[in-house]
This record gives sequence, C-alpha cells and structure tokens, in this order.
Amino acid sequence: MIKIAVDAMGGDYAPQQQVKGAMEAIKRIDDIEVTLYGDPEKIQQFLSDDTRIKVVESEGTIAMGEKDPIRAIRSNRKSSMAMAILSVRDGSNDAVVSSGATQALIAGAHILLGRMKSMKRTAIAPLIPNVKGDNTILLDCGANLEIKPEFMVQQAHFASVYAKEIMEIPNPSVGLLNIGTEEGKGRELDREVYTLLQNNEVINFAGNVEPKVVLDPPCDILISDGFTANIVMKTLEGTAKGVGSMLKQELSRGIFGKLGLLFSVRNLKRLKNRLAAEEIGGAMIYGLKGVVIKAQGASKSHGFFNAINQAARVVRKDVIRKVSDVIEKEEG
Amino acid sequence: MIKIAVDAMGGDYAPQQQVKGAMEAIKRIDDIEVTLYGDPEKIQQFLSDDTRIKVVESEGTIAMGEKDPIRAIRSNRKSSMAMAILSVRDGSNDAVVSSGATQALIAGAHILLGRMKSMKRTAIAPLIPNVKGDNTILLDCGANLEIKPEFMVQQAHFASVYAKEIMEIPNPSVGLLNIGTEEGKGRELDREVYTLLQNNEVINFAGNVEPKVVLDPPCDILISDGFTANIVMKTLEGTAKGVGSMLKQELSRGIFGKLGLLFSVRNLKRLKNRLAAEEIGGAMIYGLKGVVIKAQGASKSHGFFNAINQAARVVRKDVIRKVSDVIEKEEG
Repeated sequence: MIKIAVDAMGGDYAPQQQVKGAMEAIKRIDDIEVTLYGDPEKIQQFLSDDTRIKVVESEGTIAMGEKDPIRAIRSNRKSSMAMAILSVRDGSNDAVVSSGATQALIAGAHILLGRMKSMKRTAIAPLIPNVKGDNTILLDCGANLEIKPEFMVQQAHFASVYAKEIMEIPNPSVGLLNIGTEEGKGRELDREVYTLLQNNEVINFAGNVEPKVVLDPPCDILISDGFTANIVMKTLEGTAKGVGSMLKQELSRGIFGKLGLLFSVRNLKRLKNRLAAEEIGGAMIYGLKGVVIKAQGASKSHGFFNAINQAARVVRKDVIRKVSDVIEKEEG
Repeated sequence: MIKIAVDAMGGDYAPQQQVKGAMEAIKRIDDIEVTLYGDPEKIQQFLSDDTRIKVVESEGTIAMGEKDPIRAIRSNRKSSMAMAILSVRDGSNDAVVSSGATQALIAGAHILLGRMKSMKRTAIAPLIPNVKGDNTILLDCGANLEIKPEFMVQQAHFASVYAKEIMEIPNPSVGLLNIGTEEGKGRELDREVYTLLQNNEVINFAGNVEPKVVLDPPCDILISDGFTANIVMKTLEGTAKGVGSMLKQELSRGIFGKLGLLFSVRNLKRLKNRLAAEEIGGAMIYGLKGVVIKAQGASKSHGFFNAINQAARVVRKDVIRKVSDVIEKEEG
C-alpha cells in the first residue's frame, strides 16, 4: 500500500474539498491509504466513507494569507501541514499532498523533511497546458530566486526523470527560457546554464526557448531560475485571465454575438477547464527526501484528487531514487 | 511642421505598408512632413500621393532576420535605418519611425543618435492592452539585461512623463513587476528599486505588482529590468496566441459550437485586434537625444500610421525636454 498524508486544513476550500478529494482517490486508486491531518470535528462533517482513510488531529492551520509563512511553519509543528510533512520523515507515510500556502510548504518541507543528498537546491515545478492538449513542466517557480548554474542542471535532471516516469515521454527535452533563441542570448546565468545543458550527455537539450511559444513549446520541460519562471507562470495566469475577460466583453457585443455566445457556452467552459491549473494536477517540489505535492490553493475535490493521484504515481515509480541515481552517477 | 524620418525598408511588409502608412499620416495629421529612406524605385510603386512626402535614397537594408543586427547597423551607415536615424542627429528631422529589427534600432539609435545627457541607460517601452480598454506601458523590454537600480528610477521618470503627456493620464502610477506584492519580495535588485521608488517624491509608486494582473494592473506603468520585462512581454504574447489556438479548437466542437462560432466571427476578430500590438502603436526607445519609435515588425499600414502619429505627438509635446527637466532637477 502507498501511504499518502493529506494536509486537510490547507487551501481555500479546506477541509471540505480535501476530504472529498481523498474519498475520490480511495475509490479510484486501489493501492493507496490516506491519512488526513486536521481538525477531526470539521473533517468528520464531510467524511461520509472512511474506507482506508485515517484522521489524525492537528493543532492550528497555516493560514492562506499568512504574511510570514516560513515563520508560521517553523513555529507550529503541530499544524496540519507540519504534521503531514513530519509523518513522511518518520516513515509513517510515503508522500504529502497540501493545497496550503506555497512558501510555507516549500520551507516546511525543506526544514522538516530535508533535502535529498544529491540535490543542492529544491525547486517547484507546476505543469502548464499546451495547445497540443498535453502539459509542459515549468520550473523553478519560486523556490530559489538566485541560483548557481550547476543547481539548475540538477533540476533539469529531476524534471527529465519525472517527465519520463510520470508523463511517459520517452526522451523528454529541456528548453531554457530566454529572450532569444540564439546561443549567447540572455544574462550571464542563462549563458552558463546553456553551456552546461548543451554539454550534458544525459539531458536532451532543446536550446533557448522564447516564452512567445510558452503554450506551444518545442520541448517538454521549460527551465529558468526561480524568479523568472515564477514571472512566466504568473504572466501566463494573468494573460489567460485577462484574455478571458476581454473575450466575454467582446463576444457579448451585438445580437449575433449574444446568440453566438449562447451556442458557445459549453465549449467556452471546456476552454476554461483546459486552462485551469487544478485540472492538470499539483506542482511537485523537487529535491526533497520525500514526495511533496502542492495542489492549487483553490483546488476543488477533483483537482485535489488529481494531486493525490500524482503523489501516488511518483511513489509507485520510485522517482526520487531514480533521480538520485542519475545525479550521483554524473558526479562520479 | 514636425518632420518625421521613416525607415521605409524595415519590417515584414516593407516598403509597401510603410509607404501607405506614411500617406495615411499625411492625410490625417496636418502639421507633419515625412521623409522616406529607402529604395526610390520600390517606394514609388506604392507612393500614389507625394504631398509633403520626400524620398531619400539609401543603400541596403538591415534584414529582419539579421543574425548580428548590432554589427549590421554599425557597418552600414547608408542603410535606410541608419540614414533615418542620422537625419535626426543632423537636425533635418525631428523623429524616426522604423519597423526594422529591434536590436539594430536600439543599438543604431544609441550609436548614431546618442543618449540624452541626463539618462544613463536607454530602455524600450511597448504599450500593452488592458481589460479596461486602455493601455499600460511596459518597460524595459530588452535594452538592458543587467541594470543598476538608479537607472530604473530614471526610466520610471521617463515613462511617467510619457504617460502624462501622451496618454493624458493626470498622475500616472508606476508598479514594480515582482513575484509577490509585499515589500521585501524579489531579488536584491527588486528590493533596492522598491526602496528608491518608494522614497521618490515625484514618482507615484504603486508598489509591487504581480504579473497575474498584467492585463488588469493597479497602475499605468509596469517596470522591471530588460530581461524580466522582455520575458513578461513574450509570455503575454505566447499566452494570447496559445489561448487563441485553444479557443479555435474548442469553439468549433459540436454542431452548436460551429453555429456559435459563425455568429461570433466578427466579435472574435475584434478581440484579436484588441490584442494585436500594432493596433496600439509603437514602442518608444527612452533615453535618446531624439524621438525614436519602433513599430511592430509585422505592421500593416494602419499600424505604421499609428506609430508615425505617436512620434509626432511625442515631438509636439516636447517629451524629451520635459524628462530632462525632471531628472536634472532631481539630481540637483
């Protein structure tokens, strides 16, 4: 059995959607058990079926709007998030899933669970949609604002193993986010990372990739430092939202427009779902001793189920050990 | 009379669209004269009315796909782009408009025209659309990849004067692009710029702005370094394009979808225009001794007209002198 720890109290719709997501996971995935960390009374309200689900009481929650999330997780080891992470460290569980505050989860996982020996930095890697109907891994979305080129290569290794094992892409390719496609473009960091990726024998390097193809990239993985990739992620989110608003404004113009909109409602909803991060799954935090998946803060039950499913698959495929093997082999 | 130099040979549809755009400008703007730099034979094919339009012969063109645009402009001072820029330096014209290669134009303007005394760096500042139907200034989109905080403050001054004089916004506000809204977010550069903008008495500082509101920002000007703002611009472009493709895929699903699409065609085209950069106008290069406007490479005649109109307004409002006054006063 794969054992998943769920932070039941983190997220905009916690604990209801987390509990429902866990029940959906139990129903659809045979080889998992779930432990919900949180307020038993609140959890019980929604827990209509506790097959293979345990509840463990925690004290307090890391609030979503927490101003200093890193301090919050440091100072409250009885919080649902901290207890869920600690349960992986002590071996009671194999993976954690949380839709709580991202920075708290990254910091908490780092402090309470620790880094894997072979990787020097953690990274967070959400999936973004693409026009082909598949996903692209985008990293690092915020764990390291300033980083050494060598550490980015380790992250590229992690993403490559993830893409191969979990997304079932045979020889996943890595593109370096940059302001031009030619070699030599970008800042000193970008030029150094370019050379390292180019000369790496394991990584399938696709060269520099401009974000004007962010939704139709010539690669499976898009990599940059934690500041830039976070900016890309947020610009993507902002543009999709803004274009959506403009689409609504424009489509409803005139009588023909209103008619057209009426016929298109179902298809527009499908588009919205396709762009909704939570439909795709959670973001994995790379570089830890255990499996930690960050589900979207606004996750509804099905989105949360997707994140649990993702966590179970990462455990099942033994991704962390495989990444260690690649990196340790490289460092001789 | 305001005298505009037009690089008639730069751009994907040159010289046809540039010549047509110039004729449109002459018809609609009373106080301008245009000089077209390029191949007289090719220009004459499209020049059906030469009222207040002169043609000056140049030799060669900086190609759009030029691999080393900076070298190209340095080594060909008889090219249409170089001659147009030089005509501003020697006082024959007041402004240059070009839809040629961006890096060549930035470098060429820097080398051939020179920087204004008060500003230490140039910057390029396109306009992006927003959901309210107005525009936001985004800078620096590529002139300086690595920059000092003080120089970004000078650019913020330039953008503020531009927004006030040309966009007629009474007290334009400046937002610092960042990965979080709280003070203290971002890299060292971002934190330093934050403090400088915060303490500046002239600039109306709106604080940190996350790009997840890039199309609906709480400010009139979005500023970052030349790498980051360029990444934002390109992600915006890529997402709008990708969402457009997905929209097409989704909207045409099913018989009702196809019907809806039929009724919506006109409105969808309006949305596309709203997002098309060339409809908004060109990007001004800040920090030069003269007015230089970069029109989109793919400009059609109306887009090119918009850029000429913009150039004329910047000259008419004496923007460069007003920026100098602000910066020189600040530096005491």
